[in-house]
Amino acid sequence: MRIITVSREFGSGGRELGKRLAAELGWDYYDREIIAEIARKCSVSEDYAHYMLGQTFSSSAAITMGQSFHIPEVLQSTQIKLLREQTNVIKEIAARDRDCVIVGRNADLLLKDYCPLNIFVCADTASKIKRCAERSGKDENLSEKELLKNMKAIDKNRKNSREMISDSPWGDPKGYNLVINTSGIEVKKLIPSVAVFAKGWFDSKDNG
Amino acid sequence: MRIITVSREFGSGGRELGKRLAAELGWDYYDREIIAEIARKCSVSEDYAHYMLGQTFSSSAAITMGQSFHIPEVLQSTQIKLLREQTNVIKEIAARDRDCVIVGRNADLLLKDYCPLNIFVCADTASKIKRCAERSGKDENLSEKELLKNMKAIDKNRKNSREMISDSPWGDPKGYNLVINTSGIEVKKLIPSVAVFAKGWFDSKDNG
Repeated sequence: MRIITVSREFGSGGRELGKRLAAELGWDYYDREIIAEIARKCSVSEDYAHYMLGQTFSSSAAITMGQSFHIPEVLQSTQIKLLREQTNVIKEIAARDRDCVIVGRNADLLLKDYCPLNIFVCADTASKIKRCAERSGKDENLSEKELLKNMKAIDKNRKNSREMISDSPWGDPKGYNLVINTSGIEVKKLIPSVAVFAKGWFDSKDNG
Repeated sequence: MRIITVSREFGSGGRELGKRLAAELGWDYYDREIIAEIARKCSVSEDYAHYMLGQTFSSSAAITMGQSFHIPEVLQSTQIKLLREQTNVIKEIAARDRDCVIVGRNADLLLKDYCPLNIFVCADTASKIKRCAERSGKDENLSEKELLKNMKAIDKNRKNSREMISDSPWGDPKGYNLVINTSGIEVKKLIPSVAVFAKGWFDSKDNG
């Protein structure tokens, strides 16, 4: 079984890359499906699970560090429950023993024992703003300033959620196998090459 | 014309990757050839040119910053002359208008206008030590501690020489298009995939 994980900066096209890569390879694909499964297991709505898992993890961090940031206990315990379920769901995916691509959710760390190909996708700010502006619907007319603010907030949460469970800094190439900078690149066109690279990567692993 | 530049950490297999990649693609390859050309143009020996260009650039930096670090003037001026010639030689290579792979020498920065595919190759310390130990000849029996010391010194020079002429930190993914972590990878086996990726990358560039 081969697992590819895709971590990414918001607006870098990382999710698109993951989704198209899975389609190109004919592998299973997991992204929002994970949220749906967590929501089902915890008996909450998908939106709520998504919101809670996307929040900054200071609540859980507070517990980890034995400090109190005055976050209502009920929220703390719900978030921790969701996080635990997230770990279970991701491990269950791996246990299915099928080639797959998983986007986000620190799957690279949680599935370390399976030696996945861990890809990080980044881009320069201009490319990310452009991509976000293109994909945000007509009803969602955010200014560049607002987009940038959202982008930073989301990336900060991703960074926090990684660095809470790992010493490997978010986005640091040493923590991944491949970092793709999508600045000035049409992700769709790059997919066949990434697919070939990915297959080659699994064949290039040292036996040792 | 397509140009691939390869920057790398010492011991990461970056040079091997660049050389094999050029062979796989059937493109021109430049590495030590650049030193030979600089040496010829400056009427010094290749070894001397290599040594002087590999040294920390504090002398040139001192001049840039208008400070004196008490480096003999004759050495300063020689090094600057070699650095200038290096820029010329690399620009002449690009002017040949042939697909090529260039390893090291900050070619990614010097040839920015040609929009090369800029690859950075890194690896974890254990992999780099292993690779260095394997390739160092029988007559050169360095301890792991000595290898590590050399590795750090060479990387520090590479970092300095880049950061003297650019704001983009050495090894930061944002400054390259692709970062390949060769930890646990047999570089030779990965080459066909990198070649496909590289060709695909040039085809995926935005027209804008």
